[in-house]
Amino acid sequence: MRGVSIIGVGQTPVGEHWERSLRHLAYEAVAAAMKDAGIEGAHAMYVGNMLSGEISGQSHLGALIADFCGLRGIEAVKVEAACGSGAAAVRMGYLAVASGAHDLVICVGVEKMTDDVGSKLTAALAQAADADYEVAHGVTFVGLNALLMRRYMHEYRVRHEDFAGFAINAHANAVGNPNAMFRKAITLEDFKGADMIADPINLLDSSPMADGAAAVVLCPTEQAHAFRGKPVRIAGSALATDCLSIHDRHDPLWLQAAEDSARRAYAQADITPADVDLFELHDAFTIMSALSLEACGFAERGKGWQLAVDGEIRPSGRIPICTMGGLKARGHPVGATGVYQIVEAVLQLRGEAGACQIHNARVAMTQNIGGSGATIITHILEVQE
Amino acid sequence: MRGVSIIGVGQTPVGEHWERSLRHLAYEAVAAAMKDAGIEGAHAMYVGNMLSGEISGQSHLGALIADFCGLRGIEAVKVEAACGSGAAAVRMGYLAVASGAHDLVICVGVEKMTDDVGSKLTAALAQAADADYEVAHGVTFVGLNALLMRRYMHEYRVRHEDFAGFAINAHANAVGNPNAMFRKAITLEDFKGADMIADPINLLDSSPMADGAAAVVLCPTEQAHAFRGKPVRIAGSALATDCLSIHDRHDPLWLQAAEDSARRAYAQADITPADVDLFELHDAFTIMSALSLEACGFAERGKGWQLAVDGEIRPSGRIPICTMGGLKARGHPVGATGVYQIVEAVLQLRGEAGACQIHNARVAMTQNIGGSGATIITHILEVQE
Repeated sequence: MRGVSIIGVGQTPVGEHWERSLRHLAYEAVAAAMKDAGIEGAHAMYVGNMLSGEISGQSHLGALIADFCGLRGIEAVKVEAACGSGAAAVRMGYLAVASGAHDLVICVGVEKMTDDVGSKLTAALAQAADADYEVAHGVTFVGLNALLMRRYMHEYRVRHEDFAGFAINAHANAVGNPNAMFRKAITLEDFKGADMIADPINLLDSSPMADGAAAVVLCPTEQAHAFRGKPVRIAGSALATDCLSIHDRHDPLWLQAAEDSARRAYAQADITPADVDLFELHDAFTIMSALSLEACGFAERGKGWQLAVDGEIRPSGRIPICTMGGLKARGHPVGATGVYQIVEAVLQLRGEAGACQIHNARVAMTQNIGGSGATIITHILEVQE
Repeated sequence: MRGVSIIGVGQTPVGEHWERSLRHLAYEAVAAAMKDAGIEGAHAMYVGNMLSGEISGQSHLGALIADFCGLRGIEAVKVEAACGSGAAAVRMGYLAVASGAHDLVICVGVEKMTDDVGSKLTAALAQAADADYEVAHGVTFVGLNALLMRRYMHEYRVRHEDFAGFAINAHANAVGNPNAMFRKAITLEDFKGADMIADPINLLDSSPMADGAAAVVLCPTEQAHAFRGKPVRIAGSALATDCLSIHDRHDPLWLQAAEDSARRAYAQADITPADVDLFELHDAFTIMSALSLEACGFAERGKGWQLAVDGEIRPSGRIPICTMGGLKARGHPVGATGVYQIVEAVLQLRGEAGACQIHNARVAMTQNIGGSGATIITHILEVQE
């Protein structure tokens, strides 16, 4: 298996882009990534997207976006794993380069959500859950996460405000990120006073619906130094799954697929959690941050929230998370999110994260989640010497 | 790059399966393929599907189907390339095995269309075309193909009945296939008298909407003889794209992505069209059969229909196509079709195609098309000694 490196990244600002279609957003990110890598062509493209069919009436994004980016003819397909679609597309690109089939591969995540923020979008997002055994009973996606959070608070005797640190950290970090949707710090009082969405999840526990696109360019590690810029090596890549239905899990408060994919990625990269300098985790809701930290070995079971209370997740803390705003404040264009995480991790490792820079970052971890933990993709990235 | 072989195949009958959900159909095909290979587990699963979101309100099929098949935890994602989703999933599985990341991979195509055969399905199928520049003008997917067929008839002075041989061959071959939807021969008179769908495409030019699932098990070629049964080697695998919009192509009557993917697959397999013993092509409409035969080098430009008139596409002819009924008569559950084609090609190469058997078949080619030629995946399969 060939080593794989990232030689270019690109992104659009996250927000409400009513003036641009799916293909325009994707093009903007891809063109930026190609310019960053200094390339004018590519051999394959993998597109991460969840909602284009439901929201934009458009399937078949592989061929559509490759063509619109001036790459007509190349191998191109769409990869879907609900909100994990972005990193799943990077995983497919990783396999394509690792196999030797392609040398220059573009992975792009794109999502356009804000053209319809009514019942259509709520129903489309619920497709990440089990249509026959969960959604048929009327539960929404945020409702499922609220059940998880309520159970967590009950089992581990945690107060709602103990989760505040996750939202406060994300918003504080987004202030320095020019591509973030909400560049505005929040306080504990803001968190406690936010409107309720699905009890106990309130507005500041939740990431926002958004439009955006992000892209990376991959090539074999041994060729990476031939391109301009500082390459970043994919030291670990793993995708694991679990059942969609939360009620069908052995333990609803344990993200088994996070543990599994992180374990495989750690082994491949030959590191332990203590080696990770920053962790772009999937904070779609604050409860997911706590569960991810626990499943990946950064906190004991039931103690993930403590890292937020103690400030250990801040840029100066033991395990900085959501360093450029996370899903909460950078924004969560679902099928693009996993690629945004990787783009941000690359910027950190290159020392190009601007006001968000984590000092001396050498090893970054990203984790993208589809559904309430049914598909989890973990990547470990390292500065390539 | 490791060689990749197929060691197991499975399929459900194609038809109207109102009593079974997506996951049940997929399970039936996967269980049959695993039994055929003699395996009880797998390392990854790639799911080809186009319409589950629109028709079944369910995304996230990778984790869902892996779990339902008893494979909870493994890598699993959905791959989408409109009607080319099935073979695109096999292509991803091929890359996963070729890379060395996984040894035992299941690729399953599944589609459930007949729960809603009204305007919802027509709109969902049109998502294979360009939403902004084609569908926005009101054209349906069959309408686009009708424009192509009318142009072909005009340019090359071909009569509608000159396409009859494609439908007659497909139906004749389906009679011997227990999994085909229409096991009923048709005559030239039937073809000429069929109801018009979108002039000049009539009912017998068109493949039927259907439910179904098909699966293959892949492993490294060097390990293939360790499993029971006769393995089939994937000698060539290629995916190429073109623009979605027909009006934007250099020549609307030339399937550039078919030429490109076939050329790459021939080169990888080191064969020419003359070496191909049977060709499972994508006869969604009779016009697509003619265009595929031309683009892949089996007929001159404008002469693909002649092979049908001359009987060269029949089981005893120069290049047998649709040997088990094709999309026309086996049926066309869109995201599953590409896997059905490969399953049927494997059965032919193993000598297990029953009444449909092509004498002494050694090299089989399959070609799955997404949209009106925007994604085309070509595989070349050979008996593994």
